[in-house]
Amino acid sequence: MTDRFAIVMAGGSGTRFWPASRAARPKQFLALGSDAETLLQATVARAARAVGRDQVLVVTSARHGDATREQLPDLPQANILLEPAGRNTAPCIAWAAAHVRRRAPQGLIAVLPADPHIGDEDAFAAVLGRALDAAAAGSIVTVGIEPSRPETGYGYVDVGDAVDVGVPDVHRVRRFEEKPDQATADRYVASGHHLWNSGMFFFRADVILAEIARHMPELGEFVADCDRAAATDRELAFVEGRYGQLPKVSIDYGVMERAEDILVLPGAFGWDDIGSWSAAWALAAKDGDGNASAGAEALPIDSRGCYVSAPEGKLVALVGVEDLVVVDTPDALLVMPRSRAQDVRKVVDALREDDRLEHL
Amino acid sequence: MTDRFAIVMAGGSGTRFWPASRAARPKQFLALGSDAETLLQATVARAARAVGRDQVLVVTSARHGDATREQLPDLPQANILLEPAGRNTAPCIAWAAAHVRRRAPQGLIAVLPADPHIGDEDAFAAVLGRALDAAAAGSIVTVGIEPSRPETGYGYVDVGDAVDVGVPDVHRVRRFEEKPDQATADRYVASGHHLWNSGMFFFRADVILAEIARHMPELGEFVADCDRAAATDRELAFVEGRYGQLPKVSIDYGVMERAEDILVLPGAFGWDDIGSWSAAWALAAKDGDGNASAGAEALPIDSRGCYVSAPEGKLVALVGVEDLVVVDTPDALLVMPRSRAQDVRKVVDALREDDRLEHL
Repeated sequence: MTDRFAIVMAGGSGTRFWPASRAARPKQFLALGSDAETLLQATVARAARAVGRDQVLVVTSARHGDATREQLPDLPQANILLEPAGRNTAPCIAWAAAHVRRRAPQGLIAVLPADPHIGDEDAFAAVLGRALDAAAAGSIVTVGIEPSRPETGYGYVDVGDAVDVGVPDVHRVRRFEEKPDQATADRYVASGHHLWNSGMFFFRADVILAEIARHMPELGEFVADCDRAAATDRELAFVEGRYGQLPKVSIDYGVMERAEDILVLPGAFGWDDIGSWSAAWALAAKDGDGNASAGAEALPIDSRGCYVSAPEGKLVALVGVEDLVVVDTPDALLVMPRSRAQDVRKVVDALREDDRLEHL
Repeated sequence: MTDRFAIVMAGGSGTRFWPASRAARPKQFLALGSDAETLLQATVARAARAVGRDQVLVVTSARHGDATREQLPDLPQANILLEPAGRNTAPCIAWAAAHVRRRAPQGLIAVLPADPHIGDEDAFAAVLGRALDAAAAGSIVTVGIEPSRPETGYGYVDVGDAVDVGVPDVHRVRRFEEKPDQATADRYVASGHHLWNSGMFFFRADVILAEIARHMPELGEFVADCDRAAATDRELAFVEGRYGQLPKVSIDYGVMERAEDILVLPGAFGWDDIGSWSAAWALAAKDGDGNASAGAEALPIDSRGCYVSAPEGKLVALVGVEDLVVVDTPDALLVMPRSRAQDVRKVVDALREDDRLEHL
């Protein structure tokens, strides 16, 4: 068996989970469910079960290095790659794949975003194994999620003909589709041959780096320079000086939409990108009245459908309220209906406008 | 002019303002309005303007002694009387009146509960002055509040004939009425001769102590014993041993409902007992959308009619909510509609039932 690796992409930032998520603590560092594990910890544990802890690389922003090491104390230090600047997923994957190739030139890699929710771990593990198998002969493979609703917040994969690579249910990707408008999303879901783009990719290190060199020559050069610098132990200094100048391009746009013969496996394992507090509520364990809480202890009285997040030890009493999101942190508190979860950005915009950086 | 004194009764406890008010920090210690002054501080400042700071006595529970001294650093230490146990208002007034009588046998006393809101300080000061004038000849005087609504949460004073004591608009009290049911309250307000019982009383020290000795002989004996103990500097030890055995009786029941010739002045100075978070909202300064906040900084977005209380420096963002009460403290948070303000007790009951004393 070829060596198997995972690249966990934990470079995300974002404001949809304000005030729990901040510039200094984005979504992947949060425990949004009912247990104490953060999304990053859950993803790394999942990856470690599949490929072994020493073969899991985590790529994150340099500013989140401390938080990452703190959340992953058992991961070898050298497995955490700190990006000096965020350049989207293509440079991130290129750099991490170069690391893998040095350890195993044909190492099989599972690229996993750090922050989705996975409902069914066993089903996920099975699909991940099959996706790596399908990639072993030199293909690039993605896993598409069977859509449960016409979501406009995700990209889609248009699924083509079945193909025999010794693994069941593998198809060619006909096309990667951007986030659609509602009518298009409706059409996709009705078509029966569109899956959600999970952002998970599976390939051999040599294969993806060849594709990167071909479609993104500047990034290919960066990888070659990286390897040379690494040979004389100067990689970190080199990356420090160069990374911020790399093109800011997603792997989808930079490689997947241009490469030929991308394969896709359909997956159904309770995947969700958790795009809002409302989604966090939908995925969390609930009491008989539909109330969910993370961290804090909620005391709901005559209350239904609420989501509470607050620091451990805090008591949050709800009396006679319905479908509210209540998120408390030491210095900021948010109260809104679940249906307004998208409007968190209005708060963030208002704070930014007023230069209230301490709360961002 | 006879010496004038004020007795500020700050012995209250209660749960209507949970989680801001706790067993250790009842309502009078809270700043419920938009400024930083607590209700106790406002009342003492008001009393000091009327009678001079040295003539203001504050009676509070021994367990709140530290909080009281902290909030009133300028008040002479000896003016704070600490009750070893709460015995309702009759023992509190008897003990404090004994102190006044030792300083001025015919000292004129204004008894002021520590925790109502007064909207119009000038009008209040004028009424207080007239009430003391009316009491100078030996009457017991109360101030009745012109009712703005058929409130069932207050007692009422049934106003009788006008009487000439050299002060305009003074009437005999026909009767003190207990908190009525709604139909009775409607009738009271329609009658035109019922006022809210403000709990404020005005009398000479010798007069009230004679009435107490007459109607509550056990309490009269306590006062006499107190005076004897004070003569040999043993008052505090005596009170410590005896106070807890005194009858738990209100001055209304123990004296006012039995004494003859109680007088009443109608007052209109924006008085409110602030019985709930909803009342705190009603009295607070509001933005153009009817949102009010105390302590914290509120950031309301598409939100109306909300009341926010939280520690200084905390940001409370409201998005798309209406008529909510949000009260945050370091260890407990409450969210409810204003219309459910009475149900705070359900939270307190639930905590008590679960023996969650740390949050009470």
